[in-house]
Amino acid sequence: MVSRSAEKARETTMRLDPGAAGSLDRARRRRADRARQVADVLRHEVLAGAFPGGHLPREPQLCRDFDVSRNTVREALALLAAEGLVERCPGIGTTVLTEKYAHGLHRLMGLGETMHAQGQITNEVRTAALVRPPAPVAQRLAVPGDEPGVYLERLRRLDGVPLSLDLTYLPRDIGEPLLAADLAGQDIFVLIERLARQPLGTADVSFEAVNADPHSAALLDSPAGAALLMVERLTRLADGRPVDLEWIRFRGDRLTMHGQLQRGSPLPRVIAG
Amino acid sequence: MVSRSAEKARETTMRLDPGAAGSLDRARRRRADRARQVADVLRHEVLAGAFPGGHLPREPQLCRDFDVSRNTVREALALLAAEGLVERCPGIGTTVLTEKYAHGLHRLMGLGETMHAQGQITNEVRTAALVRPPAPVAQRLAVPGDEPGVYLERLRRLDGVPLSLDLTYLPRDIGEPLLAADLAGQDIFVLIERLARQPLGTADVSFEAVNADPHSAALLDSPAGAALLMVERLTRLADGRPVDLEWIRFRGDRLTMHGQLQRGSPLPRVIAG
Repeated sequence: MVSRSAEKARETTMRLDPGAAGSLDRARRRRADRARQVADVLRHEVLAGAFPGGHLPREPQLCRDFDVSRNTVREALALLAAEGLVERCPGIGTTVLTEKYAHGLHRLMGLGETMHAQGQITNEVRTAALVRPPAPVAQRLAVPGDEPGVYLERLRRLDGVPLSLDLTYLPRDIGEPLLAADLAGQDIFVLIERLARQPLGTADVSFEAVNADPHSAALLDSPAGAALLMVERLTRLADGRPVDLEWIRFRGDRLTMHGQLQRGSPLPRVIAG
Repeated sequence: MVSRSAEKARETTMRLDPGAAGSLDRARRRRADRARQVADVLRHEVLAGAFPGGHLPREPQLCRDFDVSRNTVREALALLAAEGLVERCPGIGTTVLTEKYAHGLHRLMGLGETMHAQGQITNEVRTAALVRPPAPVAQRLAVPGDEPGVYLERLRRLDGVPLSLDLTYLPRDIGEPLLAADLAGQDIFVLIERLARQPLGTADVSFEAVNADPHSAALLDSPAGAALLMVERLTRLADGRPVDLEWIRFRGDRLTMHGQLQRGSPLPRVIAG
């Protein structure tokens, strides 16, 4: 599972070392290391809105700020441009391009609830139907394997631009009334709480980074292979009953998850940041 | 920022719709949708270790389990193979390939602490030096801008295979003694607590999915463009002083983050899952 480019990089390193070409190669590696350092600091500033008007400082200024060469600054800006965070225009400089939004991890919330300050979430309902859920899904939702459940597939947009593709399974008694609800304009969480007449309780979540397959990429208006933040979430009502099993593919260039972790407490918690 | 493949997929959809070719195209889209559903359920089972001996059921069995066609099953397995989770061998079937590990979000922990049951974490220290931290780093660590700090760069392996690339800034009084410590074999968290004679308190974390730049990919033995789970973390001592600012690039195919979220509590928390 070692890529050809990784192998090639190692070979090049070994072949050229030592000697004049080796020094050049080491210099290039050092520059790549320095560029990564600069890019990581700038990434935080870009996402934190630290640059007034969305204009990054000019290259000479960045060279002074980070005490690095012009080539290193250019390489760092190229890394951020490749992530879609900034745009570089000759003669104009570097401007913030991203519309990347923060999703709080501190509380279990629907996307519409979380993003209401940033813009409007709309949901394109691609599928909404009664299905026989696969056995592992039925098991996790604690419903009999032969009982139909509800399957929803929604492409979610923030101000018209795709943000995530959500695949959702619900037990029949919770899901079926949702089929007649405003799935295009409302978070499922809000609808479930209204229907179940009780709040949601806890959710087990997992986060992964995956490369988008071509079909998911096309739906999300992303390049094939784009990094996606993949969230799997099993949500329970306050009484503990599991009612919502979801797989969410977030566009990596449009969302960052924030939270706070605690080291020592016996009931460790994530507190609002 | 719309990829050519995304545009092409849309064009194809519009051009062929309606008619016989349109039906074929719709069938293909339906199959891609179904394959994604199957893949998501199987991904969970693979990561949860649900298949004894690492052998997935044969294709005919999966067709029955998920009530889908053979082509859909094959497409689903191809998605998981592309993520590096499974391997498909003609005549043998599909076997679990992944060594993907769970990192708990429920508690602030170092990698060595978290993974001790899974294997041994070793750290290749690429850089360990006194540097002038960039101004935004000094500010977040609450140290004067002209004061040197310590910069560490570590390539972290689990049982010899790269897991993450960590860039770490520390204030001088905490960081300098670390330069003489066992950075190759110990978590920084453990070393800091020993040196500071107090436990760590909280950390602000953010999670993103990014595509690996070629140089980072080569270091991590990953293909260029591989999805990375990028973690930024500012960690404080129990007394509130920030002491550790880190950027961690985890290989997306080797790590998944797990936690539990709560909906309603005034001090919402993540509880051990």
